[in-house]
Amino acid sequence: MWFGKAFFMAKELKDLTKKEDNYSQWYNDLVVKAGLAEYSAVRGCMVIKPYGYAIWEKMQRALDDMFKETGHVNAYFPLLIPKSFFSREAKHVEGFAKECAVVTHYRLKNDGQGGIEVDPDARLEEELVIRPTSETIIWNTYKGWIQSYRDLPILVNQWANVMRWEMRTRLFLRTAEFLWQEGHTAHETREEAIEETYRMVNVYRKFAEEWLAVPVIVGHKSENERFAGAEDTLAIEALMQDGKALQAGTSHFLGQNFAQAFDVQFAGRDGKLDYVWATSWGVSTRLIGALIMAHSDDNGLVLPPKLAPQQVVMIPIYKGEEELAQVTARLEALAAELRGRGVNVKIDARDNVRSGFKFAEYELRGVPVRLAMGPRDLAAGTVELARRDTLSKETVPQEGLADRVVALLDEIQANIYAKALSFRDEMTTRVDSWDEFVRVLDEKGGFLLAHWDGTPETEEAIKDATKATIRCIPLDSPEEDGVCVYSGKPSKRRVVFARAY
Amino acid sequence: MWFGKAFFMAKELKDLTKKEDNYSQWYNDLVVKAGLAEYSAVRGCMVIKPYGYAIWEKMQRALDDMFKETGHVNAYFPLLIPKSFFSREAKHVEGFAKECAVVTHYRLKNDGQGGIEVDPDARLEEELVIRPTSETIIWNTYKGWIQSYRDLPILVNQWANVMRWEMRTRLFLRTAEFLWQEGHTAHETREEAIEETYRMVNVYRKFAEEWLAVPVIVGHKSENERFAGAEDTLAIEALMQDGKALQAGTSHFLGQNFAQAFDVQFAGRDGKLDYVWATSWGVSTRLIGALIMAHSDDNGLVLPPKLAPQQVVMIPIYKGEEELAQVTARLEALAAELRGRGVNVKIDARDNVRSGFKFAEYELRGVPVRLAMGPRDLAAGTVELARRDTLSKETVPQEGLADRVVALLDEIQANIYAKALSFRDEMTTRVDSWDEFVRVLDEKGGFLLAHWDGTPETEEAIKDATKATIRCIPLDSPEEDGVCVYSGKPSKRRVVFARAY
Repeated sequence: MWFGKAFFMAKELKDLTKKEDNYSQWYNDLVVKAGLAEYSAVRGCMVIKPYGYAIWEKMQRALDDMFKETGHVNAYFPLLIPKSFFSREAKHVEGFAKECAVVTHYRLKNDGQGGIEVDPDARLEEELVIRPTSETIIWNTYKGWIQSYRDLPILVNQWANVMRWEMRTRLFLRTAEFLWQEGHTAHETREEAIEETYRMVNVYRKFAEEWLAVPVIVGHKSENERFAGAEDTLAIEALMQDGKALQAGTSHFLGQNFAQAFDVQFAGRDGKLDYVWATSWGVSTRLIGALIMAHSDDNGLVLPPKLAPQQVVMIPIYKGEEELAQVTARLEALAAELRGRGVNVKIDARDNVRSGFKFAEYELRGVPVRLAMGPRDLAAGTVELARRDTLSKETVPQEGLADRVVALLDEIQANIYAKALSFRDEMTTRVDSWDEFVRVLDEKGGFLLAHWDGTPETEEAIKDATKATIRCIPLDSPEEDGVCVYSGKPSKRRVVFARAY
Repeated sequence: MWFGKAFFMAKELKDLTKKEDNYSQWYNDLVVKAGLAEYSAVRGCMVIKPYGYAIWEKMQRALDDMFKETGHVNAYFPLLIPKSFFSREAKHVEGFAKECAVVTHYRLKNDGQGGIEVDPDARLEEELVIRPTSETIIWNTYKGWIQSYRDLPILVNQWANVMRWEMRTRLFLRTAEFLWQEGHTAHETREEAIEETYRMVNVYRKFAEEWLAVPVIVGHKSENERFAGAEDTLAIEALMQDGKALQAGTSHFLGQNFAQAFDVQFAGRDGKLDYVWATSWGVSTRLIGALIMAHSDDNGLVLPPKLAPQQVVMIPIYKGEEELAQVTARLEALAAELRGRGVNVKIDARDNVRSGFKFAEYELRGVPVRLAMGPRDLAAGTVELARRDTLSKETVPQEGLADRVVALLDEIQANIYAKALSFRDEMTTRVDSWDEFVRVLDEKGGFLLAHWDGTPETEEAIKDATKATIRCIPLDSPEEDGVCVYSGKPSKRRVVFARAY
């Protein structure tokens, strides 16, 4: 695979902002310098470069397999949605019909001066909105697919681009256009739809833990943070290395709201008509941002092996063509063995780039394992093995190398997760008073487990005072008597607060 | 996999228009009734339903593998393109900047009457066009990626949705929005770019022949039919069962046109600056239309096994639950063996649908192999095997069934191709006079191999007179002295004429 040529010199690597100096700048530098993405000529829209897209493809493949294992199929619905569709669901219009790209015309014409202009005669009767999410167009379609309970469930997912006209953008985390998947399911009963909502948030949890190597808290969103049009929103919440939270995926129980808005009824087993029950769930290219922020360091990306486009890089160390040929021949043999085990291996024998630059380049790109071999290794039957996650090096025998590397990739995957988990545990604090809440938030950050009186007013007041929001009400939070850190009113369980992306 | 429930009754199957009665209606019926696609609430835009999308996913996977084998990587560029970009390349603006969806505003607001309206204060300074193709935005991006010959080649592909505001639409063949891939490569030399143009049209040829089972003619487009902004367009041309041609994929040599338009220069090996050489190439969901039109019959779809979402369906024939259990158990064992061989098998044991309906349903859906088993088969160790391509049935032993089916799937794939090839051969006619040209076109249709004087004027005149266009100037057409069927002027080779989709 080709992901672009050498894209930086040693001086540029030094220019990489340190995480501690300016976390936000460090993130942006990393995304750009590691060749993941960049801003485009269109305000707030990004170009996902080949290396970034290769990570997205690995995520897509893994998620798509998990969706299919749970009985879902893919389909595709129109990009454009008639404006009036957004008015149908009262809350949805509030949440989504505001900052949208609106298509008003369908033709351009020459302006007579070498340029082009919008043809005023080609105005659409009804304006079309580029989908910010597809509930409305999909439920309008489902109306034609559903007559009776025999047509249910419908378990459909869509991979698509969507657009929300964001004012403040950040690569991967918040851009006007982004890529995502959106599941839209239709069910006979409330219970079945709720079960689906939980099933899919658990798919996301599993994906976050086992592929992204990011531990997440699964819980309900508070009413304020709920999806516009949902009865309940479940989310996975992850913690970034700067102590801020990031919502990494959501699964919504939509009740009968969209079925009512688009008049989708079915004849039940008892012959009576009823509205269909719905869910929707999604994750996006934002996950790439989460991946970077959760694991990377001042040397560059740290990618979990299961999502790394290149898992192993081999670098020959040599003087002259003869040594290069000898070392490379041996590396080819080792690479073939590893590829036979399903490992993605690249041999970098470029002779116009110094080894030191190569080492730095693959560290920047987060390649999990680096193998370097010189004439002395060749003679001794050894190879130098470096791990990206720990930055440690050791000399190991060539014999049994494939076994060692395959096991090591699993170990690295597990270690990255363990490190993120222990960081999150450290950064999760039980707080029991307002003073403590404010102090921990400012001095330490992270997740705060605190009692809350359950009202939107208190949540709003806490947000206004501290910028912290309720990330979720964890599914596994035990019942416990307490008093709200803000209002002092009684509370039955702790919820998770944090400042968030 | 789930592709929707039983979607028609026997009477609906009878309603399927016969191909001979009305080819166009037959096609439309088939697309809709087989559950491939349907029109949406948005003019000219389609919903690709799960079964149709599953075929597209199989196409994508096969093509994507072929692109990667030839050294390409995927990336993603913005959906929206600044209007002014289209004016930069003189021919491109003529070809593409006309019937486009134009975004003029970025916000909606409540109209105070329960509806929403476009916010007049949120007008964009420069209008944005939904990409009809991405040369302009991509070459604007490449400007930042290319400084010297060391940055070349760039071998990038994008899977994306695009939009062209078509007036007359037809599902899959011509819709306002469609899905496609577009390769955009950048090269150091003219020769290298031309080589890439040929490489990719050959990838398309191979895909058409080996996966779609559709024979194609590879050739140059005439100047009239060339891509707007290309120096040369290569295409694969297929023949449909009604004798009309369908362009199934194109590969363009863009010369330095886009590099000049977006000022993309590189320092060459000699240190001198020069403009970069470009290609672009694409195929779209139109291929699904080609697939249907090339092979299907009055019973429904005929899918080549390599692209069939379901390759084998097994149907138990039984009376009562005990028989059902016994037969199904045996089918499960046979299915497991086939799945182990990589075959996609579905067992349809629905007990509320009669076997006859099931048979018709899977014929409509084009499942290549149907296996039916009743208690007598169970006792005799046999199974009834039906082929979709020939509609033939035979009773075969259960022993060795997996081997037989795996071989049969290959045989069916080859047979579908052979049938299409022999049809095309029959429907390809050498014509040497204008009378013959007109007569063959009207009475028989198909590809006409005729001499042409090489001028756009003659091509235009022939098109005006007959609606036939030059489909391509075949790469393998031998030099041969002749005279143009229309003008009588001398010609050096025959070209392919046809009426086309």
